[in-house]
Amino acid sequence: MKKYGVIGTGAIGGYYGGKLARSGQDVHFLFHSDYDYVKEHGLQVDSCDGSFHLDQVNAYSNTADMPPCDVVLVCLKTTNNHLLKELLPPLLTPNTVVVLIQNGIGVEADVQQMFPETAIVAGLAFICSAKTEPGRVNHQFYGSINLGNYSCQDDVRLHSILDDFKNAGVEAALVSYDEARWKKAVWNMPFNGMTVALNTQTNKLLQNPSTRRLIHDLMLEVIHAAQHLGVSNLDELFAEKMLQTTDEMTPYSPSMKLDYEFHRPMEIHYIYSRPLEMMRNAGFHAPKLEMLEEMLRFVAPSSPSQPPQGEEKPSGW
Amino acid sequence: MKKYGVIGTGAIGGYYGGKLARSGQDVHFLFHSDYDYVKEHGLQVDSCDGSFHLDQVNAYSNTADMPPCDVVLVCLKTTNNHLLKELLPPLLTPNTVVVLIQNGIGVEADVQQMFPETAIVAGLAFICSAKTEPGRVNHQFYGSINLGNYSCQDDVRLHSILDDFKNAGVEAALVSYDEARWKKAVWNMPFNGMTVALNTQTNKLLQNPSTRRLIHDLMLEVIHAAQHLGVSNLDELFAEKMLQTTDEMTPYSPSMKLDYEFHRPMEIHYIYSRPLEMMRNAGFHAPKLEMLEEMLRFVAPSSPSQPPQGEEKPSGW
Repeated sequence: MKKYGVIGTGAIGGYYGGKLARSGQDVHFLFHSDYDYVKEHGLQVDSCDGSFHLDQVNAYSNTADMPPCDVVLVCLKTTNNHLLKELLPPLLTPNTVVVLIQNGIGVEADVQQMFPETAIVAGLAFICSAKTEPGRVNHQFYGSINLGNYSCQDDVRLHSILDDFKNAGVEAALVSYDEARWKKAVWNMPFNGMTVALNTQTNKLLQNPSTRRLIHDLMLEVIHAAQHLGVSNLDELFAEKMLQTTDEMTPYSPSMKLDYEFHRPMEIHYIYSRPLEMMRNAGFHAPKLEMLEEMLRFVAPSSPSQPPQGEEKPSGW
Repeated sequence: MKKYGVIGTGAIGGYYGGKLARSGQDVHFLFHSDYDYVKEHGLQVDSCDGSFHLDQVNAYSNTADMPPCDVVLVCLKTTNNHLLKELLPPLLTPNTVVVLIQNGIGVEADVQQMFPETAIVAGLAFICSAKTEPGRVNHQFYGSINLGNYSCQDDVRLHSILDDFKNAGVEAALVSYDEARWKKAVWNMPFNGMTVALNTQTNKLLQNPSTRRLIHDLMLEVIHAAQHLGVSNLDELFAEKMLQTTDEMTPYSPSMKLDYEFHRPMEIHYIYSRPLEMMRNAGFHAPKLEMLEEMLRFVAPSSPSQPPQGEEKPSGW
């Protein structure tokens, strides 16, 4: 049994942490506004794969009170990543593996810079879940997680984390770090921003021939950029595949669209600015992604109020 | 004295035609829904440069009833240009000059194809006027018109039309056709679409550093395209000048934004698709303008109802 820490117990952290706790792992959860509620009533996970309730939750309102952990799942929105410098240290040992279950490109590099000695793994969640009331996560569909090794030297530990997820009933796989992050970006970069910019959902963007072509072009910009940056196993066919996959999904609002609707800060930095900066630095020009970022900067509230940490409502890709 | 015909007596046609009529020209106006009202009450022009009322208006509801004219001012929205094939012939003589006071790129070429023998001149209106009630034009600011010769062989007639405008108190000048159309596009292509796509006004786009950069980039795409197409006297400095000019304007909704707000068809074809097609055919790639067009095609009503001809409300650049 390992000691798990969950930083940011919202729709994502509550689901994966909850599944691990139910499977018998020793999981310690950081809460913000839900702390008192969960301390008294426990954590409810309503799930399309089987709902469950955790009566006794190791709940904290402050990481200083949390024990050192073998694995820390960081499930904050990346707009709160500046808080990690203070939040993470109490949980870290020389052997701790930090799994960043977050959106975007470049998060691992930036967290690594804050904690140069720490083993970092990317967690790519394919899930649609929401936290609509205190202490209650609503898992609607999907639910798998892919782990991409960024800087963990210990393969045995990595595989054992993977096994923990599997034993908890979570579909999990090891994937190539760069390839996985960029493949996710092929979907994330077009759909997150375009659903916000045009205030719509995935299906409507694909039904209109003009925006379908635009989504495809944006996907190709991501793919060509990734190829330019040396990412392998990613070619133009992947764009067709993503279009098809999305055609088959129910109408969907990506995480940035939900953030926009709920007046929360949008993850423009890690979903757009950071990868666009990497592209520019490598001499690659992505005009349409650039334009989308600029439009999002216009749409975003001019002085985004940082939401309370751990306070997540619906989350998704 | 010349016989003038005005096709589309809205905010533009009512203003310029009204000024010409007041100065003593013999002007014949095509009306649609305002016909009965104007027949009875005349035409009122409320103008920042001096208001006036025309008691007796040569009003028509059908061009078949109109006399052959020396000059025809076409002031329809370009979304109605398919109607010209039927509307224009009754007014044309072998010597008629048709002035297209319309937005966009390519209108002259397309109308010329319908009427290969007719002398065509571009009218570039720099005006903000609106038609907010029947028989009443509200001219708010600016008001000049530039004429760009497209296919008029008779210089004397062209200059005499110019003089008619001047005598009517309208600031008017002869300009180089290509240069003038493309210079106007440098402003029109960024601002018309962006105010619609982001549902905003010119000043807000320029106050936000991200969209200011984007507007500048879009202007540069138009300028580089024009240069590629052989248009002279247009360089990158013109973009700076347009930004400055717009900074000095009051918050402004371009004509496409007004069309969008009033649920009228937008002039996407002649402001975007047609020039983008010209660029593509010349091997020039304008990714951001292309993206803007695709977003506008999404925002536009899927089956735009053609508004009654001549039924214009506020109009502008």
